[in-house]
Amino acid sequence: MRAALLYAADDIRVEDVADPRIQNPTDAIVRIVLACVCGSDLWPYKSLPLTDQPRHMGHEFLGVVEEIGAEVHGLQRGDVVVAPFVYSDNTCVYCREGLQTSCVHGGSWGVNGVDGGQGQAARVPQADGTLVKLPVGEDSELLPDLLTLSDILCTGYHAARTAGVGRGDSVTVVGDGAVGLAAVISAGLLGAEQIILMGRHSQRTDLGREFGATDVVAERGDEGVARVQELTGGEGTRKVLECVGLRDALVQSFGVVRAGGTISRVGAPQFTDVPFGFGEFLRNITLTGGVAPARAYIEELMPHILDGSINPGRVFDRELGLENIADGYRAMNDREALKVLIRP
Amino acid sequence: MRAALLYAADDIRVEDVADPRIQNPTDAIVRIVLACVCGSDLWPYKSLPLTDQPRHMGHEFLGVVEEIGAEVHGLQRGDVVVAPFVYSDNTCVYCREGLQTSCVHGGSWGVNGVDGGQGQAARVPQADGTLVKLPVGEDSELLPDLLTLSDILCTGYHAARTAGVGRGDSVTVVGDGAVGLAAVISAGLLGAEQIILMGRHSQRTDLGREFGATDVVAERGDEGVARVQELTGGEGTRKVLECVGLRDALVQSFGVVRAGGTISRVGAPQFTDVPFGFGEFLRNITLTGGVAPARAYIEELMPHILDGSINPGRVFDRELGLENIADGYRAMNDREALKVLIRP
Repeated sequence: MRAALLYAADDIRVEDVADPRIQNPTDAIVRIVLACVCGSDLWPYKSLPLTDQPRHMGHEFLGVVEEIGAEVHGLQRGDVVVAPFVYSDNTCVYCREGLQTSCVHGGSWGVNGVDGGQGQAARVPQADGTLVKLPVGEDSELLPDLLTLSDILCTGYHAARTAGVGRGDSVTVVGDGAVGLAAVISAGLLGAEQIILMGRHSQRTDLGREFGATDVVAERGDEGVARVQELTGGEGTRKVLECVGLRDALVQSFGVVRAGGTISRVGAPQFTDVPFGFGEFLRNITLTGGVAPARAYIEELMPHILDGSINPGRVFDRELGLENIADGYRAMNDREALKVLIRP
Repeated sequence: MRAALLYAADDIRVEDVADPRIQNPTDAIVRIVLACVCGSDLWPYKSLPLTDQPRHMGHEFLGVVEEIGAEVHGLQRGDVVVAPFVYSDNTCVYCREGLQTSCVHGGSWGVNGVDGGQGQAARVPQADGTLVKLPVGEDSELLPDLLTLSDILCTGYHAARTAGVGRGDSVTVVGDGAVGLAAVISAGLLGAEQIILMGRHSQRTDLGREFGATDVVAERGDEGVARVQELTGGEGTRKVLECVGLRDALVQSFGVVRAGGTISRVGAPQFTDVPFGFGEFLRNITLTGGVAPARAYIEELMPHILDGSINPGRVFDRELGLENIADGYRAMNDREALKVLIRP
């Protein structure tokens, strides 16, 4: 089959790789119908040193079950399914608590002999725990929306949930990427009254307004902080959803959070030390979030997509075949495209 | 009156200062019956550069109301009262949310013309909001226990509450100082099942066991982390209460917290950057806590003292007159004494 492989920064290739096959009785093989490129794929795309053991890319996909192992009981051939961005057994002590990202039998796509999501097919470990059936056909127009359940919608929702966003709440979303926009949707679903979106790409923030942002702040740094303070009577918002992963975004988050408030970060942090000292201590700021256990939220969020009340698939503003995926990486890296949909 | 003044590191003196008098109609004057020395007093005691504007020390006291301003309605002369370690109006938007440390009319003892707590008397701003009546006489044997409501008991409780300690929980308390021991009491009050106390002063950890610690870990650093992992089936505890304020203690906290767990820190941080990077992000660790709004917890905790079910005053292992307070600072700094009670 064909799959996307990253050899070095700026060097992604689509090549023939071994067809996936059942290796463990808990595996399934999924033919991939839709995949996409993630903001987090861009970190290695920007920085990976040259290697002769290329990285299998992609961790967001949906498709059709083609084959199941002997111990897979909840799925059958022909099921249309979505995969969260890590696999998990969904039965271990962590999974039962909704922390499937810490599953004792879980792991990541594209490493340790597991396929990536940017290919024609994938072996799915722990298939019963990992895959969620979609009640639509593989030709459904809702597929792009449903694909966001694999990562960005659940990641934005994780930010809002771990921050404890509730009815009437005030929320700042830092970052107008796909996850930031999903966080806007999520804050709305949880009843937030004021949703301030910080971002400077007007096409994206316009979409953010359609998704429910009540205010947009295009300024950054101290200026951006001052603007949010203006919008909140000098207090800041009770909740801040940090959807970037850069240190500056986190610094900005500390600047806009109200005393006693919570910052949830879901942007994969590109730094090791957090500027979280005596000042924040005096203001009783909480820092929460982390990698989203997408699997925990799929059933909860899917109905909002099926009934059309949210349309997170609108973040996909470009569609390419797998063979042209390199152009998709480039376009996202150059901020020409917000999020690229891939049809293998 | 006499009061303790810090002129420089290791140079604390008791001197004559102006008697307190009502300055604002919301003030009260309290004759101090009991005060004490705080672990946080030791930071400037270790480090203050020489100054000719000495710092008025102390922020924990209880005493008797001697005089009230014209707008003080909830108190009268002769009331025995305890003061939390910051003053607050207890009516502003933050106070109503239980965040009196962010009170818009609040402030700290010992600065901006407000007396410190280590003296014979104090002017108490926002007296109605700040002071809490104690239903005992000034000769009560419970006074040392009740004095802990001014800071350490409420601080330990803030750690446990913000961490979300609940029935059946597993908790590690990092630090065997007075606040750490109060955190042990607090975790017990909230129903924790396993309370691991990390500390290496056996007299203190013995008291910690009497306060409810189920395990004591004397090792530090990697060894200490390994020991807690052993005690928790390799998972760590769901909650960690960091009661020291040093970077090493926080690093240790990250080492012993379970995936998906929460660290609450109430030790005033002596560092600005927190080592909270990608590994902790992948494990969905939350960092919460901050300076404790003691005022929020006094009424809730007082009954446990009055009915004798907790005895936090046992942390006082030395008692001195005000004139000898320098010896108390020295003894605490040398770790000869755990916490020093002062009778002005």
